[in-house]
Amino acid sequence: MRVMGVDPGLTRCGLSMIESRGGRQVIALDVDVVRTPSDEPLQRRLLTISDTVDHWMDTHLPDVIAIERVFANQNANTAMGTAQAGGVIALAAARRGIDVHFHTPSEVKAAVTGNGRADKAQVTTMVTRILQLQQKPTPADAADALALAICHCWRAPMIARMAQAEAMAAEQKRAYQARLKSARTLKAAK
Amino acid sequence: MRVMGVDPGLTRCGLSMIESRGGRQVIALDVDVVRTPSDEPLQRRLLTISDTVDHWMDTHLPDVIAIERVFANQNANTAMGTAQAGGVIALAAARRGIDVHFHTPSEVKAAVTGNGRADKAQVTTMVTRILQLQQKPTPADAADALALAICHCWRAPMIARMAQAEAMAAEQKRAYQARLKSARTLKAAK
Repeated sequence: MRVMGVDPGLTRCGLSMIESRGGRQVIALDVDVVRTPSDEPLQRRLLTISDTVDHWMDTHLPDVIAIERVFANQNANTAMGTAQAGGVIALAAARRGIDVHFHTPSEVKAAVTGNGRADKAQVTTMVTRILQLQQKPTPADAADALALAICHCWRAPMIARMAQAEAMAAEQKRAYQARLKSARTLKAAK
Repeated sequence: MRVMGVDPGLTRCGLSMIESRGGRQVIALDVDVVRTPSDEPLQRRLLTISDTVDHWMDTHLPDVIAIERVFANQNANTAMGTAQAGGVIALAAARRGIDVHFHTPSEVKAAVTGNGRADKAQVTTMVTRILQLQQKPTPADAADALALAICHCWRAPMIARMAQAEAMAAEQKRAYQARLKSARTLKAAK
């Protein structure tokens, strides 16, 4: 499974590509940070990010995109730009029929370091170790994008089981309601 | 000038197209509300909005897009979705080289009703009157999209004058700094 990790942002947007080889074995294929100047109009910045992401998706052909879930309560001003960047990236995936999953920062930290409140340095250290990189990835956005993709690779089996369980529950509910309806119809007919 | 007004949102996204005929004369060309089901994945919802907006832009060929500026402090959860929807719409405009302007809700209310704190009913009433519509536009998102486009038509001359003044100030600053530099070079050479 090939996973593209995205740490969305307008000023710096971290992108990574990771290949999962079963179990916890993961290999880094690529990592980069897209930068857009803050004095450019918003729509131009989004276009730069979108064009870069299009190129990444068409070059690496990922099976799934893992994007960091943004919360508005962190820093209101940057959160909106981050949401807009994440939106255009999710759109690029939808245009190609690629699945998109969102992971919260604490899910990512917990997956990679075992601690949902780990700091940036701990995340970078663990990412470097897990992927057996020669150097620590910089800036932090690059490390975060790699951590996101690793997090998705490791959580994917659990997410798949959850989706299966939910689908089964929905099917059972549908069957139960159908039985209930036919029982009522029979009763009314008597 | 043809202005497309956008009241961004995931559940309901208001779209309008208005033609400005100089002065305060404005004519409504089209208005609609795009709805996407809340149980669909985010990327699918963004794709529906993006496809509809693409179609609108290619059909009506607007000169400029006016989008409501979203603030994170209103409702954190819906604000993120609204920002994402606004982002993909700004991106669609950037792909076509169409200018994008953002207006705050109070700028829109002030432009249309004369009161920056007007309620939705007042905005709808004034939009109906200004555009000489036979019926009040519903839902509120449709009226808001029309109000946004009207707001842009009426603020556009002021925005153009501001941009001109800013460009002139930047040019004067550049010329002053060039003079300063050459004076210093002369002084150093003496």
